[in-house]
Amino acid sequence: ASTVACAADTTIPAAAVKTAEQLRDKAMHDDTGYRIAESLTTEVGQRLAGSPADKRGVEWAIAKFRELGFDKVYTEPVTYPKWVRHSESGAIVSPFPQSLALTSLGYSPGTPKGGLTAQVVRFASLDALKNADPARVKGKIVYIGFRMQRHKDGHDYGMGSAIRTQGPVIAQAKGAAGFLLRSAGTDPESRTPHAGVTGFRDPAKTIPAAALSNPDADQLERVLAYDKPVTVKLDLDCGIEGEYTGANVIGEITGAKYPDQVVAIGGHLDSWDLGTGAIDDAAGVAIAMGAAKLIHDLPQRPDRTIRVIAFANEEMGLWGGRAYAEKHADEVGKFQLGTESDFGSGRIWRMSASVKPQARGAIEQIAKVLAPIGVAYDAKRPGGGGSDLSQMHGKGMAALSLTQDGTYYFDWHHTANDTFDKIDPKDLAQNVAVYAAFSYMAAQADGDFGSAPGAFADDGAGD
Amino acid sequence: ASTVACAADTTIPAAAVKTAEQLRDKAMHDDTGYRIAESLTTEVGQRLAGSPADKRGVEWAIAKFRELGFDKVYTEPVTYPKWVRHSESGAIVSPFPQSLALTSLGYSPGTPKGGLTAQVVRFASLDALKNADPARVKGKIVYIGFRMQRHKDGHDYGMGSAIRTQGPVIAQAKGAAGFLLRSAGTDPESRTPHAGVTGFRDPAKTIPAAALSNPDADQLERVLAYDKPVTVKLDLDCGIEGEYTGANVIGEITGAKYPDQVVAIGGHLDSWDLGTGAIDDAAGVAIAMGAAKLIHDLPQRPDRTIRVIAFANEEMGLWGGRAYAEKHADEVGKFQLGTESDFGSGRIWRMSASVKPQARGAIEQIAKVLAPIGVAYDAKRPGGGGSDLSQMHGKGMAALSLTQDGTYYFDWHHTANDTFDKIDPKDLAQNVAVYAAFSYMAAQADGDFGSAPGAFADDGAGD
Ligand SMILES: [Zn+2]
Ligand SMILES: [Zn+2]
Ligand SMILES: [Zn+2]
Ligand SMILES: [Zn+2]
Repeated sequence: ASTVACAADTTIPAAAVKTAEQLRDKAMHDDTGYRIAESLTTEVGQRLAGSPADKRGVEWAIAKFRELGFDKVYTEPVTYPKWVRHSESGAIVSPFPQSLALTSLGYSPGTPKGGLTAQVVRFASLDALKNADPARVKGKIVYIGFRMQRHKDGHDYGMGSAIRTQGPVIAQAKGAAGFLLRSAGTDPESRTPHAGVTGFRDPAKTIPAAALSNPDADQLERVLAYDKPVTVKLDLDCGIEGEYTGANVIGEITGAKYPDQVVAIGGHLDSWDLGTGAIDDAAGVAIAMGAAKLIHDLPQRPDRTIRVIAFANEEMGLWGGRAYAEKHADEVGKFQLGTESDFGSGRIWRMSASVKPQARGAIEQIAKVLAPIGVAYDAKRPGGGGSDLSQMHGKGMAALSLTQDGTYYFDWHHTANDTFDKIDPKDLAQNVAVYAAFSYMAAQADGDFGSAPGAFADDGAGD
Repeated sequence: ASTVACAADTTIPAAAVKTAEQLRDKAMHDDTGYRIAESLTTEVGQRLAGSPADKRGVEWAIAKFRELGFDKVYTEPVTYPKWVRHSESGAIVSPFPQSLALTSLGYSPGTPKGGLTAQVVRFASLDALKNADPARVKGKIVYIGFRMQRHKDGHDYGMGSAIRTQGPVIAQAKGAAGFLLRSAGTDPESRTPHAGVTGFRDPAKTIPAAALSNPDADQLERVLAYDKPVTVKLDLDCGIEGEYTGANVIGEITGAKYPDQVVAIGGHLDSWDLGTGAIDDAAGVAIAMGAAKLIHDLPQRPDRTIRVIAFANEEMGLWGGRAYAEKHADEVGKFQLGTESDFGSGRIWRMSASVKPQARGAIEQIAKVLAPIGVAYDAKRPGGGGSDLSQMHGKGMAALSLTQDGTYYFDWHHTANDTFDKIDPKDLAQNVAVYAAFSYMAAQADGDFGSAPGAFADDGAGD
């Protein structure tokens, strides 16, 4: 129950609540977001950061913002190491020769010409590798076979991604020749390996690292169970080739009253290269663009600016989000509220917020508008702002978390199967409805949500 | 209801029925077949006809028959054109450049060095292509996008495979530069194209032909819907490279009373090369081997011989089955009854038979033993003998059809996803139970099932 409002409390005017309800109801039956996702995945396809398609993605985003009638469209440069995938293959050499479906991980170096052939040593867990005697690892290909299970909140990705990022680094430090993991994915039956970034930072301290599809991991484990030495060959042609400067692409619906105060929403424009980056993250870009477009179509501009950011190179380490936060840290107080969509296109089922105490009532007003479309408000959790915008939240931006149903997200995440057919139009529409309604209410609020330098340093959202 | 038996009727003695029931019940809880399938798919993996793995498959089958204690193990040579897949890739060149997941079809020639780039012309159906003015086709890449739906009896494969076999031939005759189809598969969400053979017979009349995965076919259709010319590049390195002589591998449990009379069961040893050929057709080989092994383990040998045939190169046109039938046509009267398993590892739900009228009572006796494990007897349908053994049936061998549940078979059929994890051990055990029980009863029958040269020419099984 909300307490009695006092003068210092942030509130949403009744007229704005009513308009937000109308936006919500319209969005639920609108396909603007769905068509944006279709356009991006069809006309551009995969958008690996730094690839020729990255540039086409930026051009697409600029053109799409303009086509949708955004008031202001601009880019901000983002520079990062350019990692390139040329080709990849793998095989069990002995005792039972056969090919393996695998994919190189981000920042993996290539293997020597002719490939890397070495014996496989299996570890039951990341901890087992951490505790291993380097003598067991030296010169071998380390393999870890953690199996992710499907969960609504996708929490097994915590361990799956830890193995993918830390595993190669630890294996390299112990003298391993290469690293393989069972893909961080929940598709036990699909021969589609899951890409993703490693934790390699120093190019001098890397080893070839790749992910096996789940059935290939099963196969390797069956072969290992014969208790004979198992030799695998990796032939990876990939690696960092200089630097690339891409761009965050930004479109704005300019605020009528406070144009310099912004509600920040977005997704990331880049994707892995195996699929067409539909659920990760054409969906996020489409949700944010689609929500802003609905606000654009209102008879009047909102009081504050709605800023949609299509981030560059989230996949290889939040490069776009970090560049954005560095550039805009000193204006953090101007960011009314923000959050990014980057967990697919499943329905939003939970909202949480990191805001000042005097804005809790306004958050409750937002929650009340979102409840009829299935969003439960959890007042106890922080709001982290999503992947790239977590960086602005870290600087002090008031932020929401709008948690999507990720039950099947990790079936397709970072694989060849991340294609447009995985997006359910009704589910995507619900996301657009949530983003449109909350963004509009935040833009019309009497008062702010507490953004200020360092404001939410201790909210636990970064944990 | 069965009629009163007369002297000329074939019957199964009561003791044999009882033993068959025991075999059935034991098989339902036995993993012999499952372990055979695991062994073949793990130790050999894919077994493309004519590839180095084909030879390893033959060696595996010989060793496995011996390990299981078969009384007689031998091979018969099978010679066929050797089709080789080296590499393959495809891409939309314009208007929206992006790669396509595809796979070359059997007997497709390669593209010229540097690839084949041509405009795509889409036809709504095979009939539309048949009726097309060659001027529309000339120099273009023909595309047909028939969508298969899941059915228990897999009947959409009739059209799917007709497009794959006849489509390239018709397109070539009309002057097309290449041929693409939506995969003959029921997995709408999977980026795994379905291999399979074309109907090319004359190597001088071929064009590069490949299958797109379902999501890639969707993507191509979305791009075509922009109503701009769509250009695709195919880069296929594949083709016929001389001849190869492989082998049908045969293992027998020798009959105690009539060793020269045989119950013939089997599967095909070869597979496509994208997966490990688990459901197609390690399962069939495992079902037949596993069933015979259970009969082998009885205290006494059966009256007639149980012959398990692991056929060579079914995939590219029943080469093993045709060679077998040519070689053994004149002994067809010695084939008591036969059928092959080649529709995955789903449970058998229907039995039908092509036998002489005087053996219908014995078939009813078999049906009664199989009914408790879910097999319905359809007295009106013929029994075709399965893929390779259809050829012996064509020569006059009495045959069953044991129809498996193929609801999901065409999700994985001929794709990278045809791997061991797709086999359900309980379902496979039910298949072994059916094969063990019927084979034993046929081997112990008083009387025959009507095999004779040309006996079943008009049963309609070949339709
Ligand atoms: Zn993402
Ligand atoms: Zn991602
Ligand atoms: Zn088959
Ligand atoms: Zn097949």
